[in-house]
Parts: sequence; C-alpha cells; structure tokens
Amino acid sequence: MMVVLTGGTGGAKFVQGLEQVAPAAQITTVVNTGDDLVWWGLHVSPDLDSITYAMAGLLSRERGWGVDDDTFHCLQVIGRLGAPTWFQLGDRDLAVHLMRTQLLAQGKTLTHATEMITRAFGIGSRVLPMTDAAVETRVMTPSGELSFQEYFVRERWQPEATGVKFLGAETALPAAGVLEAIHTADAVLIAPSNPITSIGPILAVPGIREELRETPAAVVAVSPIVGGAAVSGPAGKLMQSQGLPVSVEGVARAYADFLDVLIIDERDTGRASGVESLGIAVSVTKTIMQSSSDKVALAHAALTAARRVEKLPSRTAMNAER
Amino acid sequence: MMVVLTGGTGGAKFVQGLEQVAPAAQITTVVNTGDDLVWWGLHVSPDLDSITYAMAGLLSRERGWGVDDDTFHCLQVIGRLGAPTWFQLGDRDLAVHLMRTQLLAQGKTLTHATEMITRAFGIGSRVLPMTDAAVETRVMTPSGELSFQEYFVRERWQPEATGVKFLGAETALPAAGVLEAIHTADAVLIAPSNPITSIGPILAVPGIREELRETPAAVVAVSPIVGGAAVSGPAGKLMQSQGLPVSVEGVARAYADFLDVLIIDERDTGRASGVESLGIAVSVTKTIMQSSSDKVALAHAALTAARRVEKLPSRTAMNAER
Repeated sequence: MMVVLTGGTGGAKFVQGLEQVAPAAQITTVVNTGDDLVWWGLHVSPDLDSITYAMAGLLSRERGWGVDDDTFHCLQVIGRLGAPTWFQLGDRDLAVHLMRTQLLAQGKTLTHATEMITRAFGIGSRVLPMTDAAVETRVMTPSGELSFQEYFVRERWQPEATGVKFLGAETALPAAGVLEAIHTADAVLIAPSNPITSIGPILAVPGIREELRETPAAVVAVSPIVGGAAVSGPAGKLMQSQGLPVSVEGVARAYADFLDVLIIDERDTGRASGVESLGIAVSVTKTIMQSSSDKVALAHAALTAARRVEKLPSRTAMNAER
Repeated sequence: MMVVLTGGTGGAKFVQGLEQVAPAAQITTVVNTGDDLVWWGLHVSPDLDSITYAMAGLLSRERGWGVDDDTFHCLQVIGRLGAPTWFQLGDRDLAVHLMRTQLLAQGKTLTHATEMITRAFGIGSRVLPMTDAAVETRVMTPSGELSFQEYFVRERWQPEATGVKFLGAETALPAAGVLEAIHTADAVLIAPSNPITSIGPILAVPGIREELRETPAAVVAVSPIVGGAAVSGPAGKLMQSQGLPVSVEGVARAYADFLDVLIIDERDTGRASGVESLGIAVSVTKTIMQSSSDKVALAHAALTAARRVEKLPSRTAMNAER
C-alpha cells in the first residue's frame, strides 16, 4: 500500500506514472485543498480535479489543467454577463464543480463528493482531500493579501510573496482515512509539487505532519526544484519567502523532520551532500517528466528508493511492542 | 406603454413580433415563473430565459428553448457522474443559471437578477418575473403529483392531468412594478401561451387578476387554441382538466372576468359568437407564427385591437374622480 501527497499539475504527472507501476487499489492520494475556491457560485477544487482528470485519462495535456479538448462556451457567456473570467472553467469541467457543489449543499463531505466523482470516472484508486474543512492558502504581497488563485492565476505569480498562511488550518481535521493510510502504508511518496503551497497546506492540517514523523512507512519525496529553480510555477519564489534556499537542500529542509529519501535530478548530484547532511538519503535520477516513460521511470525510482529504506522502529511501533 | 403577460415558447415568438412594431422602452413583459426549478443545484427559470433569449436574438429556433447553436458538453459529463439529464441545459445557457443562482444566493431578488441579465444582453425592454416568491406549478395525475417540468419534459405531457395547483401562490406578492405596469399601461396583451400553466400561475398571484379587472388599459389576449386544438404543447389537455372546452370559447372563459378582446385565428371564425356571448369582443386574424412577418402581423393586430377598445371608466378611475 502506498500514499501519495500531492498538489496539482506536477503531482498529477507523478501519479500517472505511479499508476503504471502499481495496482490502482494500492494507491491512496492525499490532495491539497488549500487552493479551493468558490467560483461562479461553485465549489472548485483545482488540485483534486487535476488528479481526478489525470487518473481518468481526461487531463488536458496542452493546458495541464481541466479536461482535454474542452470548450469554453459557458465562460464566454458568463463573461458577457459581467462575471470575472480570469479563472477559467471549461464546459465539461463545470459538470464536476456542479456535482461537487450540490453534494456539499446536501451536507455531504468533500471526501464523499470526491469518492463519488472519482468512482463515476472509473478510477480504481482512492483519492482523499487533505481535509473536509475549509483551509485557504493566502499569499502576502507588498500590496496586500491574495488568495492562492488570485496570486497564481490572476496575477501570474508576479507579485513579490512576503509570506504564506493557511487560513483555517489550525482547527481543521484530516479527512477520514488520511492518518490511517499514512500509518499503515509501506511507502509515503511526496510528489514533485510546490513544497510551500501544494504540500505545505497538507502538512499544516494538525496531525498529518505528526503522523509522517511517526509512520513506519518509508517517506520519499521527489524534488520539484531542479538545477536551482522550480520545474514550473512559483515554488522557487515561495520557498524564498519562507527563508528556504531554492535548491534540493531547501526542499529537504522543508521536509527534514519526517523525510527518509529525497529523489533529486541528475543535474543536482553536486548538491546531494547538503541534503545528506540533514540525515536524509539521496537518490539520483531523471526527474523531469516529459514523456510517458519519464513518468514511469520516476515512479519506479520512487518505489525502489522506498523499498531500500530501513527504518528504525518508530516510537509508536516501540510503544506498541511494549 | 404596454404590458405582455407570457409564458415560454409561444410567448417568446409573440414578443419578438411586438418588438418589431413598438419601441422596446414601451414594453414590460410579465413572465410566468411557476415552471422554475432547481436543476443541478442551479435556479432555472425556463420562461424568463426563453423571453430573454428571444429578445436578445439568441433563442434556438430549432429547439424553441435555450441558446441557438449551443453545445451540451457539461450535460454529457454530468450524466456520466450520475445526475439526471432529462431536463437539458446547454453550455451557454448554463451561464445564465449560474449568474442567477449566485445573485439569489447573495440575497438579490429574481426581479433584480432578471434585470441584470437582460441588461447584460442589451435588452431595452423591461422583463419582470410575476413574483419574487417561489410559486410551483404542480400537475395532478392518476399516478401522483408532478412538478411542471416532470409532467411537461420528463413525461412529455402524456399522463392524464386531473388537476393543477400553484404551490405558494396564496402568499406570493407580485414582483415590484407588475401591478403599476398593468395599471398604467395603455394595453395589456396576453400572449398565445397556455392559459392554465403559463398564464394561470401569473393570474394566481394575489393582486394581479384583480388589477387586470381594474386597469383602464385595454386587455387583449391571443388564443393559443386554433381549430379546437393547442398550437403546441399540453394546453388542450390541461384546459380539459380544468373543465374548460378546448376552443376559443374555453380560452375566453379562462379570462372572462377581465378580457376585452380575444384574437382568434381565421379558422375559428365560426366560433366567435361563443366568445362574444361572454361579453368579449373578437378580432380575427392569422395567429400561427411561422415567419418573422407572421409575428409582426400578429403583434400589429393585437395593438390595433387594443386601440379600438373603448373602456368604461373602471371602478378605480371612478373612485379617483370622486
């Protein structure tokens, strides 16, 4: 059994590879919901959707988000009606948001809505939101606080980020099944997602970070930083805002309290010692996923690295043995 | 100034003709909302939408409802997710329902939402819902009670209708502007819509029927029954369920307490005396609207008939003169 902690695009690619090398029934994906937003009155969960579409074979390759070959006819008309359109929802994509919004309005949890939607798409693995509570990633900038999507999509992550916070995280509970999945997994894999705003919100939900420290599972992360820069998106800028170097060492530091292995790109071989000095093993491979075989190779490397980890009995396990 | 009371398809065609013969700023349309439904979590107002799309030049000619040349991509996916799809919403059409639902969720009235949507489409005339309250047309059948859309769309009006009721009508108030518009109009035109489930709900809102009796305006209706049958839809069956003959006389009886003139089709000339015996004048013309010029001719006939009405001073007017 394995658990993947993930955000959106990079995580979706990683999960696509993993599905090729492991049975779907053995994979539980725990997904960031700090990016969620209410848009045109609908509850949109961009990262859950990217993972869902990736697993269903529907994710747009061209855009990296939304449904492949989707149309934007609703968007054109709603723009004419005066609604903002800087965050784009395709017509097919809308169906998922409509269904989720209805289920939530009926009092169902986000976990339940996600299960129902992933099943309907024929997805055999388990996809869990990090929490059923509202946790909202906010980015501080010199000209004010922005929601994550305002920062990322509307402002194209150009404003200087001076800080990040996760509103509501303190009182959020992990979604049902998250802690158990991490605790009973053979491997916990952290996708090459932004450590601050994709994995960060997951770690901010009380109990999850603690369980990552305690679990007997091997914890393996793939660095989203290659050659001193983010493979895509604002990970570098946001790591800087948190006082972390934009390097594999910075990624290792973000996860230092629970990580067993960091998988780094071949280009970063020279920086391995900085990671190892934190007590974290390093595995070197090609981490940029361009082709389908790149994805498979990276997933294979992550699982291999996890199998090689020999963990000392955790405090929990020792307690259980007493 | 003129007021049009209307339902969906037939009314939309009539209004299209009227817009060709009168300035938009002089037209107030009061629209049935008894067909409204919550669908996929959205507030859908089918008759308001048909009128809006007709006035905006967007109404699908092919279907008679929804937006011309629309796609149904959202519908395809939401069906896959298990939502019912017997009531169809196109992708462009969805924008209107999303916008209306958001405005209502923000506490705005349906009147406000309608004004905002019609303005955004560049519509120069005033479109009013009959009420801002929830009024739900229910059709009794031997196998149970149906909402109007269940009866009309899902069951294709095949079940026997044993009765009709308008849930919530007793406590509904006319939307702001409705009574004033009827009272101050030169002419009130009743579109060739179903007298029972299109015009019936409007008349069921307390105050509207009374104002039609009181107004100094000429009240002119166009018969939706031609040659002893409805031009389209279940008007005939539903009139029977109310004990009305399916004829121009039946239409006249439905409106007898306030109607000045009934416009009937040339084919019904032989039935004029049955209408006139109710104290209602008859005007004969071609009422089937196939072409654009048919619509214009019918609108012209309705306005001409209204101009010829010489009303006795109404009770209200007499009171005012005292």
